[in-house]
Amino acid sequence: MKNFADQLVEKIRIMKNPTVMGLDPVLDYVPDHIIAESTQRYADPSKASSQAILEFNKALIDATSDIIPAVKPQFAYYEMYGVNGIKALVETIDYAKSKGMLVIADAKRNDIGSTAQAYATSILGKTTLSDGQQKEMFGADAVTLNGYLGIDGIEPFISLAKSFGKGMFILVHTSNPSSVQIQELELKDGRLLYEAVAEQVTDWGSTLVGKHGYSSVGAVVGATWPEQAKKLREIMPNTFFLVPGYGAQGGDAQTVKSCFDKNGDGAIVNASRSLMCAYKKNNSVDPKDFMMATREEAIRMREDLNNAIF
Amino acid sequence: MKNFADQLVEKIRIMKNPTVMGLDPVLDYVPDHIIAESTQRYADPSKASSQAILEFNKALIDATSDIIPAVKPQFAYYEMYGVNGIKALVETIDYAKSKGMLVIADAKRNDIGSTAQAYATSILGKTTLSDGQQKEMFGADAVTLNGYLGIDGIEPFISLAKSFGKGMFILVHTSNPSSVQIQELELKDGRLLYEAVAEQVTDWGSTLVGKHGYSSVGAVVGATWPEQAKKLREIMPNTFFLVPGYGAQGGDAQTVKSCFDKNGDGAIVNASRSLMCAYKKNNSVDPKDFMMATREEAIRMREDLNNAIF
Repeated sequence: MKNFADQLVEKIRIMKNPTVMGLDPVLDYVPDHIIAESTQRYADPSKASSQAILEFNKALIDATSDIIPAVKPQFAYYEMYGVNGIKALVETIDYAKSKGMLVIADAKRNDIGSTAQAYATSILGKTTLSDGQQKEMFGADAVTLNGYLGIDGIEPFISLAKSFGKGMFILVHTSNPSSVQIQELELKDGRLLYEAVAEQVTDWGSTLVGKHGYSSVGAVVGATWPEQAKKLREIMPNTFFLVPGYGAQGGDAQTVKSCFDKNGDGAIVNASRSLMCAYKKNNSVDPKDFMMATREEAIRMREDLNNAIF
Repeated sequence: MKNFADQLVEKIRIMKNPTVMGLDPVLDYVPDHIIAESTQRYADPSKASSQAILEFNKALIDATSDIIPAVKPQFAYYEMYGVNGIKALVETIDYAKSKGMLVIADAKRNDIGSTAQAYATSILGKTTLSDGQQKEMFGADAVTLNGYLGIDGIEPFISLAKSFGKGMFILVHTSNPSSVQIQELELKDGRLLYEAVAEQVTDWGSTLVGKHGYSSVGAVVGATWPEQAKKLREIMPNTFFLVPGYGAQGGDAQTVKSCFDKNGDGAIVNASRSLMCAYKKNNSVDPKDFMMATREEAIRMREDLNNAIF
């Protein structure tokens, strides 16, 4: 059975690019001509909005699938458009996979027992339907999770990861300012909470370590907390890091540097807005050329990361 | 503006029933005759499965809407059936509301900034579409959240709660066995982590306390941890508790008793399987009489709770 972490390491090495493109498509990000076209085609505004997002996503994938190894659709932005939005999400995932990209479902799910099982089935596995057949629903390669409920909430995902070569990234230290409110509470033994969570995550992932030394149970470690990232890289040497917060949130190549190991492996850095809205950065860019602007920003980010890491 | 906690307190008082019916519909729960009918009507097995679930939910709501104040659909079980499942979820919520029930979306969402905003908009608010119009997507009255990311992840929900009279329940101590792994870590100051989270939740909810003394920012407190519930009832006197774990998970009226205040207010107890599958409890019940079995179990549970509380 393939191992998700191995796949990720290898894809990043081949492309020499530890970038994941976040697909967080609010309508404001979508170029006007795509919205106009979709509005003309679909009378239902929920359908028109969702299809505009899907077309935008497909173009972003076309613009980058040969240079970026993975995409990370953030479920919230699709759920916001209801049933049609979920349809656009499913089709975005299918399209990215058809172009050879790995798909990390940013859903931050967390529940227990049969409910955690249902989420795992939905996002990574196959659902048994009324005719007894099994069908993939979202079909992502990996998913983000929140570990507050302990192993009960993680176990069904680990089980599917073993059976189908899937992966997960569990929140350890998030990129936002208020992450410290809970995550940096000091424990009796001197550790901060996120360090204790890190140790649990390492333990939970111990049976899924691949040949490149990384587990398919990864961690979410924000780009905006370089000191914490450095400590985490030390205490969890076999854990792959998904690193949000580069770009719009203030993280840069220097702050994410400590997420990588000495060989330049072990982390993938997310950028959403800076890639999706690259065409908005410069007034001289015609919005119709958004694909080229995204591709150029992807190349700039790749060079930026490589210069810092190596 | 109405206050969600006030609505909940009043509805429970009128019905003399602090029960919320969890709608966690795996196909195994649905009586065979409903599945057979749906399979006959819809060729697509994903559609047939989802419609069977919807029909089952509607019947359960019909059977109980005059005696149970609220329902709690668990999003995982609908997402498991993909786009058609989400459609069944939206229609379940609409139907419950049309019958006067309050709807608590059990989604345990957690994210930051614009993403938390997107989840809040999706579940409690209104989405602005490509034609500029605003449309309700899920339209729930309240949602469950995970506070690991701090106030950044909660603030958008609080804002909508203030504007639209909505509510939320933030995970404090969950009902599952492994909840202790993270939630009961001991802090330097002697508190356990869940107590620190409880204090944050109290703080976050301080501006949403209604006339009955309870905030629309509530807490999830598992029925299976009576000692912890007792402590939490003391340290968060203005926080309404959503209490899972009664019935199948081992909680009973005695273990949930300490979640209520001395007037019998302040908590609502969830039951999913024991209500949905009441018809399976006794071999002599014809599955076609599942509505009556659920109603009888709802009345039994109501009496059970009232006997313990008062």
